[in-house]
Amino acid sequence: MTLRTLSINKERLEKRIHELAEIGKISDTGVCRLALSTEDKQAVETVKRWMEDAGLKARIDHFGNLIGRLEGKNSNAPILMVGSHIDSQPYGGRFDGVIGVLGALEVVQTMIEKNIVPDTPIEVVAFCDEEGCRFNKGLFGVRGILGKLEEGELARKDKNGVSRREALIEFGCDPTKFKDSQYKEGVIGAFLELHIEQGPILEAKGVPVGIVTGISGPLWLSVEFEGFAGHAGSVPMSMRQDALVGAAKVIVALNELASQDPNAPTVGTVGSLQVFPDSRNIIPEKVTFTVDLRDIDINRRHVLEANLRNQIKEIADTHGLRYTISEDTNSEPRYCSERLMNIMRQQSEVIGLNPIELMSGPFHDSLSMSYVCEYGMIFVRCKDGISHNPKEFSTIEDISLGTELLYHTVINYKG
Amino acid sequence: MTLRTLSINKERLEKRIHELAEIGKISDTGVCRLALSTEDKQAVETVKRWMEDAGLKARIDHFGNLIGRLEGKNSNAPILMVGSHIDSQPYGGRFDGVIGVLGALEVVQTMIEKNIVPDTPIEVVAFCDEEGCRFNKGLFGVRGILGKLEEGELARKDKNGVSRREALIEFGCDPTKFKDSQYKEGVIGAFLELHIEQGPILEAKGVPVGIVTGISGPLWLSVEFEGFAGHAGSVPMSMRQDALVGAAKVIVALNELASQDPNAPTVGTVGSLQVFPDSRNIIPEKVTFTVDLRDIDINRRHVLEANLRNQIKEIADTHGLRYTISEDTNSEPRYCSERLMNIMRQQSEVIGLNPIELMSGPFHDSLSMSYVCEYGMIFVRCKDGISHNPKEFSTIEDISLGTELLYHTVINYKG
Repeated sequence: MTLRTLSINKERLEKRIHELAEIGKISDTGVCRLALSTEDKQAVETVKRWMEDAGLKARIDHFGNLIGRLEGKNSNAPILMVGSHIDSQPYGGRFDGVIGVLGALEVVQTMIEKNIVPDTPIEVVAFCDEEGCRFNKGLFGVRGILGKLEEGELARKDKNGVSRREALIEFGCDPTKFKDSQYKEGVIGAFLELHIEQGPILEAKGVPVGIVTGISGPLWLSVEFEGFAGHAGSVPMSMRQDALVGAAKVIVALNELASQDPNAPTVGTVGSLQVFPDSRNIIPEKVTFTVDLRDIDINRRHVLEANLRNQIKEIADTHGLRYTISEDTNSEPRYCSERLMNIMRQQSEVIGLNPIELMSGPFHDSLSMSYVCEYGMIFVRCKDGISHNPKEFSTIEDISLGTELLYHTVINYKG
Repeated sequence: MTLRTLSINKERLEKRIHELAEIGKISDTGVCRLALSTEDKQAVETVKRWMEDAGLKARIDHFGNLIGRLEGKNSNAPILMVGSHIDSQPYGGRFDGVIGVLGALEVVQTMIEKNIVPDTPIEVVAFCDEEGCRFNKGLFGVRGILGKLEEGELARKDKNGVSRREALIEFGCDPTKFKDSQYKEGVIGAFLELHIEQGPILEAKGVPVGIVTGISGPLWLSVEFEGFAGHAGSVPMSMRQDALVGAAKVIVALNELASQDPNAPTVGTVGSLQVFPDSRNIIPEKVTFTVDLRDIDINRRHVLEANLRNQIKEIADTHGLRYTISEDTNSEPRYCSERLMNIMRQQSEVIGLNPIELMSGPFHDSLSMSYVCEYGMIFVRCKDGISHNPKEFSTIEDISLGTELLYHTVINYKG
């Protein structure tokens, strides 16, 4: 799908995406731009310059966030914040986060060029350390401005022993001045984020752009089955307490539960599993595995969880296994603003896009914003659903369409 | 069950088992007596002394085997060999192998005390390195005397870098004189081995002693499933190629196949499994696992294998997985001698034992002997089927009953 005319400047957007991809480039198409690294600093400075060139008032705050501001008719009205992040995974791609920041800049630069003055101030933001790989905890910058950092976060160290505090100072931030960079309640009116899908749905449906309905927080469980080891050759089948057979039945059961309603976006995954003693001729005594269950409908997820727990109990009973289930994470789905989605739906029609609506499995900076203001997200199709990998790819055509929808959403936004 | 009178000397047997357990003792009840170690040497010298005290002509051959000979009426008749091994696993028990060697010695010493001179020579043997943990290849001594060593075996190193050649020389052996320690074809007439069951069947049936019908060699396969990784939150169930779901279905299928005939001794086990990338929120891309399938009926095993391979193909097709199956080991079952089993059956009746008959899943020195002569095995009940662990346990009552049956089998053996 292509539109006859684009308001935004596709060539400029493409040029910037390519230029940013040179900073921390790995292999032909990959990027390694860990949060608060020298590469990250270079990228932030580059985008800051572009913001200033576009006419924004740009600053790097004490959390390492880059924020470029366009004044509105009413300077005191709640801000419309638009953006994402430009830090990357260690073996990451060129588009994750980046298109949300450069797309937002493109939107605001287009407005300036067209002499469109918004009612409310608009802030284009590149949040610091969304990925969380360096200090093993992400969404740092966005939680920072919202006053949601947890105790001990500055003491977390990377694998070279550098603490986040040290890295922030090296980056030019002053952790003693965090308060100055925080946003009081009510100051942010809404948040909009453009992002690659990081999943295969848009590609499968043949559409370039999707309107996100919400972020489905995962339920994360760890299950341990304990049976009894024995020689694989000498214990009759009827006398076994094989922990791996138990685990296998749970994996099959979860797969069936998550698949039972083909129209629901429910997903269930066992991604990690360990066997003890893991020897080919010894019956597994202990198996530990993870469960990841997500659904945009929290009640349906609760029903599935209860069903799964029942099946785990039955399977354990059948095979003479002891078991424990621990809950590692229990996030609720965070729904996108109907008001913002309606603007997106109407504007899609106006510009001739036919987006589908889909939920987001992965989390984004939007997840943190959802607790303080209304938020909306636009997804752009990506190849084979691949992300967090140098193979990550979206066409500039698709990115431009997503950015065009973001542009029309922003200019039709009412504070 | 206890017999009114035992021919063998239960107290002497018990004393020797306890004394041997002191050599290489670990924890309260464990033993670490790795092949060709100083502990192994000390144990071999101890048993050699007992053999000589009993009136046997004892020697340590160039493979590290301890052999004590009782002459028969006909010195040139094929030898009746009786024994097992006294080396242990690194975290092993007191009975595995040991009761087969000390039981055989007790049998022959009882014959000497009762002035029973056998028709054929009898050799009591403690084979060197049955376990194979030190150099990662077992059944060394028994294969040595049969001329079945493979190329490069002497160069195999333990984890400290000591080669088997060096360990043998340190032990007092001379690898250049292996030929002198080999037995020509036809020189051994039969082999009898007493061993703990290393499984839970005798205990479950409430009988102290079992007559072994054969050793069921395993079929060992390695299976690899390859699907496609993706974010656990963003790939819909219908689009997944989850390698772990495929593997789980095979584990369940194998368990059902091996259990389908409750009267068959078939066993099927997946003991080892690895997931890649093994991350809780990434759909497993690759899973590798082992299959261990055993049956005393090779034709039934072939049918089950074909069925399993079909199911692997179907499961792979259903889940969009590529797969490979490699065969690591394909051993045929080795049946015990009907003639020897008949002597055991008759003598059990004579002495008032009611043994059950069962196959052996694990292999033993008997496995190698089965290719050169007829062989028979007697199993002794052990607690909870535990072996290769300090918790390994058999009562002296059960061991004595097994030894008593061995005694009656030996004195009724005809060359």
